[in-house]
Amino acid sequence: MRVLGVDPGLTRCGLGVVEGAPGKPLRLVAVDVVRTSAAMPLGERLLAIESKLDEWIAEFGPDAVAVERVFSQHNVRTVMGTAQASGVATLVAARRGLPVASHTPSEVKAAVSGNGRADKNQVAFMVMRLLRLKDKPAPADASDALALAICQVWRGGADNRLRAAMNKNGARR
Amino acid sequence: MRVLGVDPGLTRCGLGVVEGAPGKPLRLVAVDVVRTSAAMPLGERLLAIESKLDEWIAEFGPDAVAVERVFSQHNVRTVMGTAQASGVATLVAARRGLPVASHTPSEVKAAVSGNGRADKNQVAFMVMRLLRLKDKPAPADASDALALAICQVWRGGADNRLRAAMNKNGARR
Repeated sequence: MRVLGVDPGLTRCGLGVVEGAPGKPLRLVAVDVVRTSAAMPLGERLLAIESKLDEWIAEFGPDAVAVERVFSQHNVRTVMGTAQASGVATLVAARRGLPVASHTPSEVKAAVSGNGRADKNQVAFMVMRLLRLKDKPAPADASDALALAICQVWRGGADNRLRAAMNKNGARR
Repeated sequence: MRVLGVDPGLTRCGLGVVEGAPGKPLRLVAVDVVRTSAAMPLGERLLAIESKLDEWIAEFGPDAVAVERVFSQHNVRTVMGTAQASGVATLVAARRGLPVASHTPSEVKAAVSGNGRADKNQVAFMVMRLLRLKDKPAPADASDALALAICQVWRGGADNRLRAAMNKNGARR
């Protein structure tokens, strides 16, 4: 299973593609950060993010997309832009017929490190370990996008097994 | 000048097209509300909004788009969806090369009623008056979209006059 993780943002939007299955080793396929300048009109920034996502979906053919679920606890100014970028990511994935999952930051942290309150550094360390990289992925947006993809590979796997089990039970009746 | 006003939202997204110029009578061109069900996946909802906006821009050929500026003071759950819908509206307009303006709810209320704290009913009443309609536009999302468009026709006009004056001054130098 191949997942594109998106850590949405206007200034930096993290993208990470990971391949794997629950209980099997994970593999890094690609990682990058789309940057757009605050001097650009909002529409241009969203277009740049849309175009990069479209390109990546065409190039890497993920089976699913995982987008970080945005909360509004944070900085009010930033969070609106983040929500708008996440809307564009969800739109692009849906247009391609891909399932879109969303995970909260603490779900992602818990998935990769066992601790829902892990800090950025710990997440980056675990992403490096799990993907057998030589260095921690940087910046944090890149690392977070990979962590999201890993979380979805594992959770998606659990969902798939559940669905398979349910179908099996259905067949038994 | 023809403006498409968008009151963004997932459950109800208001769309209103108004034609006019500062100091001249305003004319209603079109008004509608896009509704999507909370039972649909987020991506499908955003696709429905995108497709309707695309259709309207092609059909009514606005010169500009005005989108309500989203604040996160309100209900946390709703505001994220609203921000995502506004991101999609901004994206669609930018893709068509249209300028996108954003106004806060109080700017819009002040523009149409002279009172930045006017209630929904007062805004609907003034929209009815300004567009010489027989009834108040309903629901509130439709009325708010028209108010946004009116605000932009007037503000955009002021901006255009300012720009023209600045060019004139520039030419004098």
